[in-house]
Amino acid sequence: MKQSRDIIFLNKCLALAKNGSGLVSPNPMVGAVVVKGNHIAGYGWHRAFGLPHAEVEAIKMAGAGARNSTLYVNLEPCCHYGKTPPCTDLIINSGVKKVVFCTLDPNPEVNGKSVEILKNNGVEVRYGLLESEARRLNAFYFTFVEKKRPFISLKWAMSVDGKIADASGMSKWITTCQAREFQKQLRFEYDAILTGSGTILKDNPVLDFNVPGQIKKRLAKRKRFYKIILDSTLKIAPDANVFSNANANVVIFVANGVVESKKKFPENVEIVEVERESNGLLDIRAVIFHLYSKGIGKLFVQGGTKILTSFYNYGLFDNIYLFVGGKIIGGPAIYPPFEGKIIPLESQSEIHLEEVIRIKNDVLMVFRNVRRDN
Amino acid sequence: MKQSRDIIFLNKCLALAKNGSGLVSPNPMVGAVVVKGNHIAGYGWHRAFGLPHAEVEAIKMAGAGARNSTLYVNLEPCCHYGKTPPCTDLIINSGVKKVVFCTLDPNPEVNGKSVEILKNNGVEVRYGLLESEARRLNAFYFTFVEKKRPFISLKWAMSVDGKIADASGMSKWITTCQAREFQKQLRFEYDAILTGSGTILKDNPVLDFNVPGQIKKRLAKRKRFYKIILDSTLKIAPDANVFSNANANVVIFVANGVVESKKKFPENVEIVEVERESNGLLDIRAVIFHLYSKGIGKLFVQGGTKILTSFYNYGLFDNIYLFVGGKIIGGPAIYPPFEGKIIPLESQSEIHLEEVIRIKNDVLMVFRNVRRDN
Repeated sequence: MKQSRDIIFLNKCLALAKNGSGLVSPNPMVGAVVVKGNHIAGYGWHRAFGLPHAEVEAIKMAGAGARNSTLYVNLEPCCHYGKTPPCTDLIINSGVKKVVFCTLDPNPEVNGKSVEILKNNGVEVRYGLLESEARRLNAFYFTFVEKKRPFISLKWAMSVDGKIADASGMSKWITTCQAREFQKQLRFEYDAILTGSGTILKDNPVLDFNVPGQIKKRLAKRKRFYKIILDSTLKIAPDANVFSNANANVVIFVANGVVESKKKFPENVEIVEVERESNGLLDIRAVIFHLYSKGIGKLFVQGGTKILTSFYNYGLFDNIYLFVGGKIIGGPAIYPPFEGKIIPLESQSEIHLEEVIRIKNDVLMVFRNVRRDN
Repeated sequence: MKQSRDIIFLNKCLALAKNGSGLVSPNPMVGAVVVKGNHIAGYGWHRAFGLPHAEVEAIKMAGAGARNSTLYVNLEPCCHYGKTPPCTDLIINSGVKKVVFCTLDPNPEVNGKSVEILKNNGVEVRYGLLESEARRLNAFYFTFVEKKRPFISLKWAMSVDGKIADASGMSKWITTCQAREFQKQLRFEYDAILTGSGTILKDNPVLDFNVPGQIKKRLAKRKRFYKIILDSTLKIAPDANVFSNANANVVIFVANGVVESKKKFPENVEIVEVERESNGLLDIRAVIFHLYSKGIGKLFVQGGTKILTSFYNYGLFDNIYLFVGGKIIGGPAIYPPFEGKIIPLESQSEIHLEEVIRIKNDVLMVFRNVRRDN
């Protein structure tokens, strides 16, 4: 009985946490519930990066009701000064009797320390329930902290005959406009979108996201969003559509030693030099490390064959969004999604099919990379 | 009221008809219901090629109850001697008052003639309800009669990176065994499976079907099934697995003038010579015409790139079964599903997504070719 009650409230925390999707990164998504006797005295979630933690919201709502209550939360509360003071202080001071959470915070500044602090201050602690669900919800955060890189999703749209563009490189459009709108809403969950100069030169996209309907305007304004362009020889023009939105930061990665161009880019554009690899492409690991340093927790990669192959070759992906559109392109397969590294079929570690969604005449498949060596 | 009652019973006919799937071709699937007052006096369906028509089964079950009844059926009853005597005779003689059916029979020996015969004999006739549903159910039959060729389904399994085999031609296995079992059950609905000698030489498959669980053994024995192999230079060996089942007929198409081989094939093997096209491949239209002449109504094509491209280039396909397996093959795209004819994306006539089915870690998409010029 006790356990199923804990699970009900922890599931509530996980559901609340999701409300912060797209707004909290590189912080984790957290929801909290204060339970006094048989009723919920307070609840809350981390609404956006820089705003109060879920525990603060829930305890504030509970007020005096927090005394002798049980606090449920999907992640170990913090015990360090970040953008906000430590949650452990607030928990202890507000008289919470017991804290139940799903999983330890992988951040070495917290990891297990909060448990000690709470116990030493007479607060009962229980954790480990719904641990895998909690880890999956914040997969991007665990990746960011444990692997020191953003969580990476690769996205492409493919014809039924396995091509992401026709022989001339044209890819407008393999999927319906409904699928493309859906995809722009997916981007909201990410901190950055990355593409190559080829896409900019050919399609001249804005590379924007759509704000999901349920997100309040005031919160949507807090969304941080980067547009990342790999352009080794700085071919793209300063008046490309990608620069049209002054609120988004743009980072262009160029090859080391590319002569400073006379091109005058807008103020929100940063140009970063990285090494080339032996194949002439930019060193994707250096790019990723730079993005990590900027606090980019979730990266949406919308590449052509070259870009996707770079990520694939290093095993640098956590998720795949594969759209299959009801089109047949024909001709030679000049643009498959991946080239590069060959893995014999008999020694494959499967990628796991998480979800299948039909969108009008297209299908979206979401795969999870089960084996993540990098 | 009248109409909704008609629709209820015609839907019942469509449902009954489906029981004949895989067993009646090149006949259509037909179900029939005899309604007397407010109750069903008899029902039946065409169980297998050579067995009685649905109308015969239903009227026989109704017995004396057929007098002054309404007969529902999804296709215009026949009025000619085929394997069985004309249904119009039986309908008139058994005293049926009214016949309601979905669609005229496209067969010129029947088309509208039965309506005349019934009316001239005092039987009331109504038709046209659920016509598109009825045409779709028997799409293979309408294709066979109207286009004078089998209904053609192309099937392939593709990795998430759009390849049907790795660079060495290996395709074992892109999908899970569950998806492959499912696919063998799909084959049951067909009269023939077609593949190339490349597949025989590389994978040495039996090319069998699985009998769905609900099919009675006695009926399954009546199943006609052909294995068709395109092998221009007669490379395959007489002891290949494809010849192991003596009940299935095998037809090997070779290029005109291929010297009579000393290879001794089993008795159930027929070798047919056809012309080559300018690209060296066998003339697929000649192959298809030959299969039509043999009364093959539904053809399942399980090709490699060459075979699939041949069908695609001539627009000779009605259905696509696309399996996407959770594998990444990598390397150059030597084996995409199609090469051949290029259709610019902006002038595509979409293929229509009929169904999406998840099978363990794989996805099956069923597309219908909306534009069928051939």
